[in-house]
Amino acid sequence: MDFIARHLGPDAAESKDMLARVGYDSVEALVNAAIPQSIRMDEALNMPAALSETDAQAKLRSYADKNVVLKSFYGQGYSDTITPAVIRRGLVEDAGWYTAYTPYQPEISQGRLEALLNYQTMVQDLTGLPIANASLLDEASAVAEAVGLMSRAVKKGRRVLLDSRLHPQILTVAAERARAIDLEVEIADITDGVVGEDLVGAVVAYTGTEGDIFDPRAVIEELHGRGGLVSVAADLLSLLLLEGPGGFGADIVIGSSQRFGVPLFFGGPHAAYMAVSDKLKRQMPGRLVGVSVDAEGRPAYRLALQTREQHIRRERATSNICTAQALLANVACMYAVYHGPAGLTEIAKHAHGLAESFAAAVEAQGLKISSKDFFDTVTVNGVDAASIKSSLESAGYLVRAIGEDKVSVSFGESATEGDVAVLADAFGAATVDSAEYSLPGAVQRTTEVLTHEIFNSIHSETQMMRYLRKLADKDLALDRTMIPLGSCTMKLNPTAAMEPITWPEFANIHPYSPEAATAGWRELIEELEGWLAELTGYAKVSIQPNAGSQGELAGLLAIRRYHVANGDENRDVVLIPASAHGTNAASATLANLRVAVVKTAEDGSIDLADLDEKIAKHGENMAGIMITYPSTHGVFDPEVREVCEKVHAAGGQVYIDGANMNALTGWAQPGKFGGDVSHLNLHKTFTIPHGGGGPGVGPIGVAEHLIPFLPTDAASDELDAANPTPVGKGVPITASQFGSAGVLPITWAYIAMTGGEGLSDATAYAILGANYLARELNDSFPVLYTGNENLVAHECILDLRALIDASGVTAADVAKRLIDFGFHAPTLAFPVAGTLMVEPTESEDIAELDRFIEAMRTIRAEIQEIIDGKVEYEESVIHNAPYTALSVSSDDWEYTFSREKAAWPVSSLRLNKYFPPVRRLDEAYGDRNLVCSCPPPEAFEFDAETESTEEA
Amino acid sequence: MDFIARHLGPDAAESKDMLARVGYDSVEALVNAAIPQSIRMDEALNMPAALSETDAQAKLRSYADKNVVLKSFYGQGYSDTITPAVIRRGLVEDAGWYTAYTPYQPEISQGRLEALLNYQTMVQDLTGLPIANASLLDEASAVAEAVGLMSRAVKKGRRVLLDSRLHPQILTVAAERARAIDLEVEIADITDGVVGEDLVGAVVAYTGTEGDIFDPRAVIEELHGRGGLVSVAADLLSLLLLEGPGGFGADIVIGSSQRFGVPLFFGGPHAAYMAVSDKLKRQMPGRLVGVSVDAEGRPAYRLALQTREQHIRRERATSNICTAQALLANVACMYAVYHGPAGLTEIAKHAHGLAESFAAAVEAQGLKISSKDFFDTVTVNGVDAASIKSSLESAGYLVRAIGEDKVSVSFGESATEGDVAVLADAFGAATVDSAEYSLPGAVQRTTEVLTHEIFNSIHSETQMMRYLRKLADKDLALDRTMIPLGSCTMKLNPTAAMEPITWPEFANIHPYSPEAATAGWRELIEELEGWLAELTGYAKVSIQPNAGSQGELAGLLAIRRYHVANGDENRDVVLIPASAHGTNAASATLANLRVAVVKTAEDGSIDLADLDEKIAKHGENMAGIMITYPSTHGVFDPEVREVCEKVHAAGGQVYIDGANMNALTGWAQPGKFGGDVSHLNLHKTFTIPHGGGGPGVGPIGVAEHLIPFLPTDAASDELDAANPTPVGKGVPITASQFGSAGVLPITWAYIAMTGGEGLSDATAYAILGANYLARELNDSFPVLYTGNENLVAHECILDLRALIDASGVTAADVAKRLIDFGFHAPTLAFPVAGTLMVEPTESEDIAELDRFIEAMRTIRAEIQEIIDGKVEYEESVIHNAPYTALSVSSDDWEYTFSREKAAWPVSSLRLNKYFPPVRRLDEAYGDRNLVCSCPPPEAFEFDAETESTEEA
Repeated sequence: MDFIARHLGPDAAESKDMLARVGYDSVEALVNAAIPQSIRMDEALNMPAALSETDAQAKLRSYADKNVVLKSFYGQGYSDTITPAVIRRGLVEDAGWYTAYTPYQPEISQGRLEALLNYQTMVQDLTGLPIANASLLDEASAVAEAVGLMSRAVKKGRRVLLDSRLHPQILTVAAERARAIDLEVEIADITDGVVGEDLVGAVVAYTGTEGDIFDPRAVIEELHGRGGLVSVAADLLSLLLLEGPGGFGADIVIGSSQRFGVPLFFGGPHAAYMAVSDKLKRQMPGRLVGVSVDAEGRPAYRLALQTREQHIRRERATSNICTAQALLANVACMYAVYHGPAGLTEIAKHAHGLAESFAAAVEAQGLKISSKDFFDTVTVNGVDAASIKSSLESAGYLVRAIGEDKVSVSFGESATEGDVAVLADAFGAATVDSAEYSLPGAVQRTTEVLTHEIFNSIHSETQMMRYLRKLADKDLALDRTMIPLGSCTMKLNPTAAMEPITWPEFANIHPYSPEAATAGWRELIEELEGWLAELTGYAKVSIQPNAGSQGELAGLLAIRRYHVANGDENRDVVLIPASAHGTNAASATLANLRVAVVKTAEDGSIDLADLDEKIAKHGENMAGIMITYPSTHGVFDPEVREVCEKVHAAGGQVYIDGANMNALTGWAQPGKFGGDVSHLNLHKTFTIPHGGGGPGVGPIGVAEHLIPFLPTDAASDELDAANPTPVGKGVPITASQFGSAGVLPITWAYIAMTGGEGLSDATAYAILGANYLARELNDSFPVLYTGNENLVAHECILDLRALIDASGVTAADVAKRLIDFGFHAPTLAFPVAGTLMVEPTESEDIAELDRFIEAMRTIRAEIQEIIDGKVEYEESVIHNAPYTALSVSSDDWEYTFSREKAAWPVSSLRLNKYFPPVRRLDEAYGDRNLVCSCPPPEAFEFDAETESTEEA
Repeated sequence: MDFIARHLGPDAAESKDMLARVGYDSVEALVNAAIPQSIRMDEALNMPAALSETDAQAKLRSYADKNVVLKSFYGQGYSDTITPAVIRRGLVEDAGWYTAYTPYQPEISQGRLEALLNYQTMVQDLTGLPIANASLLDEASAVAEAVGLMSRAVKKGRRVLLDSRLHPQILTVAAERARAIDLEVEIADITDGVVGEDLVGAVVAYTGTEGDIFDPRAVIEELHGRGGLVSVAADLLSLLLLEGPGGFGADIVIGSSQRFGVPLFFGGPHAAYMAVSDKLKRQMPGRLVGVSVDAEGRPAYRLALQTREQHIRRERATSNICTAQALLANVACMYAVYHGPAGLTEIAKHAHGLAESFAAAVEAQGLKISSKDFFDTVTVNGVDAASIKSSLESAGYLVRAIGEDKVSVSFGESATEGDVAVLADAFGAATVDSAEYSLPGAVQRTTEVLTHEIFNSIHSETQMMRYLRKLADKDLALDRTMIPLGSCTMKLNPTAAMEPITWPEFANIHPYSPEAATAGWRELIEELEGWLAELTGYAKVSIQPNAGSQGELAGLLAIRRYHVANGDENRDVVLIPASAHGTNAASATLANLRVAVVKTAEDGSIDLADLDEKIAKHGENMAGIMITYPSTHGVFDPEVREVCEKVHAAGGQVYIDGANMNALTGWAQPGKFGGDVSHLNLHKTFTIPHGGGGPGVGPIGVAEHLIPFLPTDAASDELDAANPTPVGKGVPITASQFGSAGVLPITWAYIAMTGGEGLSDATAYAILGANYLARELNDSFPVLYTGNENLVAHECILDLRALIDASGVTAADVAKRLIDFGFHAPTLAFPVAGTLMVEPTESEDIAELDRFIEAMRTIRAEIQEIIDGKVEYEESVIHNAPYTALSVSSDDWEYTFSREKAAWPVSSLRLNKYFPPVRRLDEAYGDRNLVCSCPPPEAFEFDAETESTEEA
């Protein structure tokens, strides 16, 4: 059977039934009615024929075979590490973990929230700061976010000082991102003291890119004295041996957690971390897991301070980092849990010890090293860098050449004394007996870390296997249920596409491996970029942005730089419809663009009159418009071409957000119906799993005239962090050239196995599923917006507002009640308050859709009981949902409705039932009482005598 | 951290606590007290130092790299197939599936029982017979079992006719196994008609080894006329296109289900199948899943007719096949579920179509083929076989040479038209346009198959992913709980050892690949056999037997053949202690040895007086003794050397069953303290997972004088099925030379990562864990047998008999009640009725052991309530256990005890609770009403109004 038949939920008979209900003879007829002719493609896609799963994997194998796994001593932010097999199989390769969505619904996400809380606790402990977020995208964007945070917190500065000892790719990204928000950038060696005036703060490297350790206290003191802040970029493993910068007064500590068991992945995805001082905690970007209580008063986890996220703040947002690298952060935390403080210290000492051996060898040979104070990296000076590097590559070793006369050697977890001998030999040196380079006493760690029980109880493989299973079992992911999240496209993540990402020849490649050792990666990426360009109708695609948010930023910066290059500095206003994703406005802010909101008409489309008005108003200052198509209202607006033409006519550029490409792929190309730039979400339309909140990939496609402004390689020699990137060129967006390269084989395989026709089918079936649900649910919950022939696109908005008014029930009540039916809630209150947005995707079969319909109709009847006065809202089954197994089987049952009504509202549940581990979360309590590290085990002790009587 | 520290449950602090409780200062002191000095090793093991997980995988990678994956067109019982990625990841590589035990406890095994029932239904449908078992070990042993079954059913015959068209390895194994039970073997081409007299029956090949199809009806009619039976060995995939032999009157159909998605695995493990006519069903060997009802009257699955299994029948057993290939059978059934009848037919037609193209090409070239009636295999005659085979191997293709002038080409799922062209070219032929070799009309399938909903509803990947997860979630496996099964050693299955088995260079190797293409496999196996010989103290080990039962048979046959070779034909009595595993007696029966039982003394050891008596009685007729050490009573018998010496002195051989090697490894070697032969269970002591009831591996080790009698290769040219294997030689035991080769990397990796010292530690900690439990539980449930210093070995027997007498509670009640605490029951009523045998293994930490102790003490208190007259036995919480989530949350609760007492008896459950999907099974109902295929979906429909009032 072709892969596409495996990917689509409904088979031929089922789709016939569904079409009959929707009122069409064929999917083609449905699509022809739904997607406006005005935007349809003229020609068939020029895509290769679909491959079988076997052939696609064989092709990937041939790419993998063109990569060479060099033993990695390169460092520069990417270190050799060992992923424990039990974590690889039980987490990275486990659908229960990787198919989960972001934990916005805490009751069904306690497992991964616990893991992320472990991560935060680990980062807090190691950095010595009281609060850490649940990861950021990469180290470079973390530094950029730290700069942004300092600049928001210290309002009077206009300049930031970046330590020249930071890794070069971090410097180039952070410098450009700082300039984009109008900061001046000073780059200097911080070990020479603080330079520059009007500083919001500085970013200090700890350790430096050549491996040297510098005590940051004097710098911190001076900057604090001047009213500035200090961010420290630290190697997380080094912090087992070195005191956490928080202990020295640092305000912010950032870095990568990659070397905690996350594969090199040719540069990403890896989880960056950020920890901040108490006074900065409410301004910290990113997601923050906190401890709250559930309706029975028991501790439960949730995302804290969600109001900081731009999906709520919109144009007031200051950061567009709502995405994280949850899956990778979870790997890193499990690595810390598995090794514990003693094991991690042993790994850190191992790396340091080998570095010592190496340093002693080369020094005994009379060679000079950059610093005698180092952790894991030794830089040898005055050598023929190219020749040493090249000879070691022939021997299977990867080291870093710095300029023409320095070679840096960085030791990781799998390095051995044997490796030291080989490496030393390449420098003409031999290992020697004594090797004493103790860490500088002033910064040696003296405080204990990772003292919480979780880091001291799960060290056997059996324990870890069960811990991973236990956490996954608490959560609802795609491997157990449809996740009908509008705008989030929770479709199948094909196993045949997932398998190759952990092949060593993809996973264990350092991003700065030479081209000859990465030919397979480069071919794969080039082919994928070509396919994405064809699918979107753009001239060129870059897969560099490692999240949709970064794609938006990259796209808007491209527009901005295009205008500037044309001498149109004044064009800095971007029009954004009221219905847009919140990220859009946040990205505009980060690109230093001003936002003007365009109204939405009653039918959900863009209000053309208001558009005209806004164009007229902003005129020469308009940079362009940012629209989503089909709109976030789940409708194909037939006037989209007109919108694009109006903006173009006024000299603006059109940004079409590709969030909803799942409704277009194979039928319409944004690059052909008016877009100048779009980003895609490979983790949505193109089957990279959500991973519980990351990784994501957000490539951008651009029209010909914007090609020069596509993201550049942050590590490129052509960039000079000290000077702004030339006006005619794009800026780097992520630390590594290919962003989240490691997960690209997933999209490559999906497209290869699906082929052009299959991709069109996927879109058509997504539209079919959404319209089937819309038709079936409309009587219970009116569909808010429809387009031609009353059709929706790939999702539909169910309007609950009349019911809310009549019953007091909230959309959140419905979302929580769905948990009792074993469903993840649809998207809540976006883009319209009081609604649910439902997107079934093409991968759900009719049985699952019908199960959802039954659940929604049952809930509708429960609402009716309130409307009819049969039950009070506060006492209703819906308001008190969801119900744990413990609550419905406790000896005391104090509700007026029955236990069976609570837990077994429909009979199909009796064959397959999910119970959430906690009752409904008290959201406000958690924000009032902010606790963002692991609570003590006693917090979870049950008092068997009393707990059942405490329930609401 | 070293692997051994990951493998052991208790860390240093925990083991100190445990030792203190048991009363020893160190594990060495404990072991010194527990294991008699008389059997201890004199010298340290000569084993390589332990490798890290990474280094062990690197070494395995180097072996894998020495294998060459040739595209397989060899056939001969092993066909090219594609394992769907979703099944590989969701089942083969999922701990929830592979760490499960045999489903003897049906309430916690409904998921895998459903899968096996699907398997049986599939086999029944395809073979056209009403009843099929849940798999056998391999095709050869399945044929041997069919012969045995015919001979038991047809009591008057003394000879069996084997079709010379059977695969050669099947013939050699089946012929020797038939001779071992005193049948004469006639081998003849069945297409020439029935030959021979006094036949119990015949085994007919359908299709023949050269690919030809023969209509078996005339043969069946004739044999039935003579009072004989007919077994048909059939290719399962061919049965999509050919009528099932049951439809032609065949009594038994057997074969392999390997080509239903199970990798070639260098010969195994693969699931063989057997289906029989209604009249043979109660005599069929192997496990049989049946449908019964639970205490609430709802359908539930269980193993049916368990009294047939030798663990109950002991010396009356007629087959020792209690092991199956559950994991592989489940892969095969999921393959059928995923493809459905249409998909499978398409795959069958694909293979047939390519065979047609190939046949047409070579015939057009003027070459002769063996038969124009073929399914997937075409044998070309009159060619230079060696040269064609060798030139194709250079091109990456594997074909079969038959003699010097025939080449057989067999097409599988991944073969393509392009392959046909390459293959034809090697014969100097080119593909031609027309290719019509329709299947013989008389045997073409006309009946529908796989009409049950389960084969027609799960064809999308999302559906399959969720189905696999749903089934696994119903079951309790090692990934969620300790499985404290005495004698079954449910220890950790290390992930680093599991990962390599699905590497293509191990998984996709045909067993008859040339030596040059399997050098890695052969080196690995040789090294492993050497390590096992060192660990057991034997001169040589063979890993051929693919289950413990087969190891026993191989070992006993070695003893028997040794005596015969020495002229001691009369030595055919084997002494077996009363406490032995039932398999022992069954194996003796299969080896045509008579069993004499030796009594057990009061302390659980062998009654030496009775031993003397039995030796005296059987004298010159004694073949030897078969003992288990430490005994199945969980005790180290200090007199074991004396036992061995007594038997040796009387001219007997000593077989030491290695079932309990987990208590000896690294401390004592059976080959050194008296054994002449032992088998091991790699799936117990050496970490191959149980897979829900297979695969297993049962290597045998032998002393020098028995080396000639080790199993030989069934496909060896030196064997001639038509004549008995020469008396000085061993017989083949399994179809493929290396048995279940595919899982051997697991044991290799475990030993490599553990090393000699680590293996000793594993044993010591197993003994520590058992003694900790014994000490902690003795007050609640007296430990029946102890040895020196009141110590047990690696397991302990808890005596419930006094409690049973006092309360009416049964051991089964305790077992079922443990489910409510989230535990799999210990071994029930073996080796002593009214007891539970508990083996914690070295992999359980103190927290899990304490959780078990708490559960057992709580149950003990529940029993006390009955003894004290506070509650009637019938109304007790223990007698009505276990409880489903539905039962404890139903609106009607009719028990005198509370819901919380039923479901939440201890507070730790509130943080992690497993609910069984069904109430207690009605065992008798299922055997009275034998249903062994999938029930209709309606059987599971709940009547929501009434079901909760129906409960007992």
